[in-house]
Amino acid sequence: MRDLNEGNITQAVLSSLANMPEGRLRTIIVKLIQHLHAFAQETGLTEEEWKYGIDFLTETGHKCTETRQEFILLSDTLGLSQLVVAQSHRRPDSATEQTVFGPFHVPGAPEVPPHGADITNGAAGEPCFVFARVSTTGGEPIADALVDVWQADSDGYYDVQFAGWDLENASLRARLRTDDKGTLSVRTVYPRSYPIPTDGTVGLMLEAMHRHPMRPAHIHFMVQKPGFDTLVTHVFSDTDEYLDSDVVFGVRSSCIAQFLRHKAGIAPDGTTVNTAFYTMHCNLVLDTTPTA
Amino acid sequence: MRDLNEGNITQAVLSSLANMPEGRLRTIIVKLIQHLHAFAQETGLTEEEWKYGIDFLTETGHKCTETRQEFILLSDTLGLSQLVVAQSHRRPDSATEQTVFGPFHVPGAPEVPPHGADITNGAAGEPCFVFARVSTTGGEPIADALVDVWQADSDGYYDVQFAGWDLENASLRARLRTDDKGTLSVRTVYPRSYPIPTDGTVGLMLEAMHRHPMRPAHIHFMVQKPGFDTLVTHVFSDTDEYLDSDVVFGVRSSCIAQFLRHKAGIAPDGTTVNTAFYTMHCNLVLDTTPTA
Ligand SMILES: [Fe+2]
Ligand SMILES: [Fe+2]
Repeated sequence: MRDLNEGNITQAVLSSLANMPEGRLRTIIVKLIQHLHAFAQETGLTEEEWKYGIDFLTETGHKCTETRQEFILLSDTLGLSQLVVAQSHRRPDSATEQTVFGPFHVPGAPEVPPHGADITNGAAGEPCFVFARVSTTGGEPIADALVDVWQADSDGYYDVQFAGWDLENASLRARLRTDDKGTLSVRTVYPRSYPIPTDGTVGLMLEAMHRHPMRPAHIHFMVQKPGFDTLVTHVFSDTDEYLDSDVVFGVRSSCIAQFLRHKAGIAPDGTTVNTAFYTMHCNLVLDTTPTA
Repeated sequence: MRDLNEGNITQAVLSSLANMPEGRLRTIIVKLIQHLHAFAQETGLTEEEWKYGIDFLTETGHKCTETRQEFILLSDTLGLSQLVVAQSHRRPDSATEQTVFGPFHVPGAPEVPPHGADITNGAAGEPCFVFARVSTTGGEPIADALVDVWQADSDGYYDVQFAGWDLENASLRARLRTDDKGTLSVRTVYPRSYPIPTDGTVGLMLEAMHRHPMRPAHIHFMVQKPGFDTLVTHVFSDTDEYLDSDVVFGVRSSCIAQFLRHKAGIAPDGTTVNTAFYTMHCNLVLDTTPTA
């Protein structure tokens, strides 16, 4: 401990954990120290670069508020979030894949009936009629599953991003329960690709990386049913231009669906729609084996 | 990009840098992504653990203010700061080693003459008479070197930690210039070991690691002279109980000196001291080859 240099300091820091009990936290901290030091050594990190990193992290922290989580955004855009999600929910090919939760879910969204509800509530966008079927990997319907659905409007904004928002005037978010056939349907708007917030450190990083900040158009779903691993996923539009470059690495082939465009006329719910509208059908297939 | 899993997501994230120009920043970001992902994979990081990490970083950021830098403290206590310092200032054995700068230096400290100044200014502690000689690795004196000296009082507090502090009433910090023989002397107080601040996330981490928060007693020096690599170092007391467990891994064998205790009587500056007092002699040896 009196002759530390770049060659032996990692071992010295690990040795300082001599009194730390064995266990999960110790395992994680040991790996953290090893990778942190290896990163600095392999890059030959300079004092100026280190200081830049300190300032970057500090600014990222200062950007975080009750309604903004810049560290999650950083994790998302570095692919860490999706990596953790993927390794936490290994599933058979027949199940719908897990994706990042994202920052825009709100617990306690309005409950609506299994079919026919219009959750638009004034949000901008062309009408979109969504049909989902929740099933087991064997194809059996799962009735009475609790489904959260939430999405952005056609300008790319979630209701929570508007000033003065509260759950009383929620739009484009709801909770439904599947019927006996495992199905549900809801009227919403056609989603559009949208940028993640770029007015913080993550925006600076993306710019430096020459990456765009866009997510392909999608609708979020969370499906809960006792005995099944809770499914958190997106359904993406199969024609979106950002499908192969999602800024948060969230696209999975099992999560892509067709949004079919229709001329104005009679909608699937029997009403007459005066504008073009969309229909989308998707399957949400639950895995029976929760993985820890 | 549509079938990412834990096996191929790292490559996908790296591929997203396709448009990023080659260069230092790219090199650093690539290594960062690789180590971040490897850390998560090798630990099998869970979603709960990931969330804990996000919250830890956020709280660390929120702890940072104009006068508190919790991320630097985190870097220091994980040995990252000293690693970066060491690899940025590789020196011959004959030179004094570089150590972490620490958060308590203040630019523009009061200038005092090369010899005899009392910089105590009311700070608590037993008198300590410090003698330093600044030289080249060949032993030649370096005259007119600018030396910053700063330290904590005997309770472990730096002047900047007291409410209402300003440079006008600085204590235990000064700037001196070496004389023709490369020497300087100053009256200060005997330093004591002290804890780093533990009321933030770093304190929690140290507790979880079963590590104490102490730094061995020391006096900070910075020596600047054109043509030489600026020396930032500490001089530690060779009897300190924490010399082999400095919480920020800052001790170097070339930075340890004897603080000799004397009975009350005539001090080296010719004055009479009514209490026991200390003397300390140290060499500050500059390397002529700045490393980038
Ligand atoms: Fe979204
Ligand atoms: Fe200090």
